[in-house]
Amino acid sequence: MTHEDFMKEAIKLSVENVEKGGGPFGAVIVKDGKIVGKGANSVTSHNDPTAHAEIMAIRNAAKELGTFDLSECTIYTSCEPCPMCLGAVYWARLSKMYYGNTKTDAAKIGFDDAFIYKEMELPLEKRSIPAKQLLHDEAYIAFKMWEENPDKIEY
Amino acid sequence: MTHEDFMKEAIKLSVENVEKGGGPFGAVIVKDGKIVGKGANSVTSHNDPTAHAEIMAIRNAAKELGTFDLSECTIYTSCEPCPMCLGAVYWARLSKMYYGNTKTDAAKIGFDDAFIYKEMELPLEKRSIPAKQLLHDEAYIAFKMWEENPDKIEY
Repeated sequence: MTHEDFMKEAIKLSVENVEKGGGPFGAVIVKDGKIVGKGANSVTSHNDPTAHAEIMAIRNAAKELGTFDLSECTIYTSCEPCPMCLGAVYWARLSKMYYGNTKTDAAKIGFDDAFIYKEMELPLEKRSIPAKQLLHDEAYIAFKMWEENPDKIEY
Repeated sequence: MTHEDFMKEAIKLSVENVEKGGGPFGAVIVKDGKIVGKGANSVTSHNDPTAHAEIMAIRNAAKELGTFDLSECTIYTSCEPCPMCLGAVYWARLSKMYYGNTKTDAAKIGFDDAFIYKEMELPLEKRSIPAKQLLHDEAYIAFKMWEENPDKIEY
C-alpha cells in the first residue's frame, strides 16, 4: 500500500464517522506497511472529550503492539492534529505524520483547533482558562521520589 | 474542602503512583465541591502513551457525569499540564485549573513537556517530526458533510 492508500483509509473512517453522527475525523497508525491501529472521533458517542481520532488510533495501536513506544510507526490523519493530539503524537514517539485537512480548515467548520494553538503560545496568566499554582513544595515530593527511584520505567 | 485540600488529593495520587512504579503525576476533577474524577499517570502500566493523569481524570469525570462537557468543573493537577493534557483541558471546557509543579520542573526530571511546547510554536515544516499534507480535496469531503449535517452534535 502507498501513503495515499493509508490516507484514504483515514479519510474513509472520517466519512463513515460523519454518517454515524460523529465528528469528521479519522486516523490510522501504520507499522511495517500494515495498519496496527484505527480511530475515529468518538467524543459525542463515547461522552469522552479526549476521544479524538488520533488519540483513539494511538491507544489502539499501543494496545495492539503491547507498548507505549510507537517510534517505528507512522500516523495518517484526515486532519492536522489539534494540540492535544499533536502532543499525543510526540508522547507516542511516532516517526512521521501525514495529514489531509489543516487546522485552518477545522477552524472554518467550527472546531477550536486554531484557537487552542493560539492559547498555547500565551503565558499561563494570559490564557482564557484561569490557572493558579498551589502547594509547589508538596507537589515536588513526587518528582524527587521519581528522580531517586532506580527502577523507574522512563517513557 | 478547600482548593488546597483538592490539590493535596492530586498530590497524593502522584506520590502513590510513584510508589507503584508509575510517573509522578496525579489529578482530580471537582464539580460543586465534590471530586467527580481522579487520574494518575498510567502510561507504562497501561501501555498507553496518552494515559497521563489529566487525561485519565477527564475521561473518568466525563464517564461519571455522562457528558463530554465539563464546563462546570475545575481541575487540580500535581503538575502544569503538558500540551496534550492542556489541549484536553480546553476540549473538556474545564472552567479553572490549579497546578503544583511547573513544566520546567517536569523538564528537569526528564519529561518532554517543555520540548513539546517549543515544538508547537514552530511551523509544521520546522518541527522534529516530519509532516506532509496528502489528498486535501478528498479529506475535505467529510468536513463538507459535517457542515451540511443539520443533526450534528457540536462539541
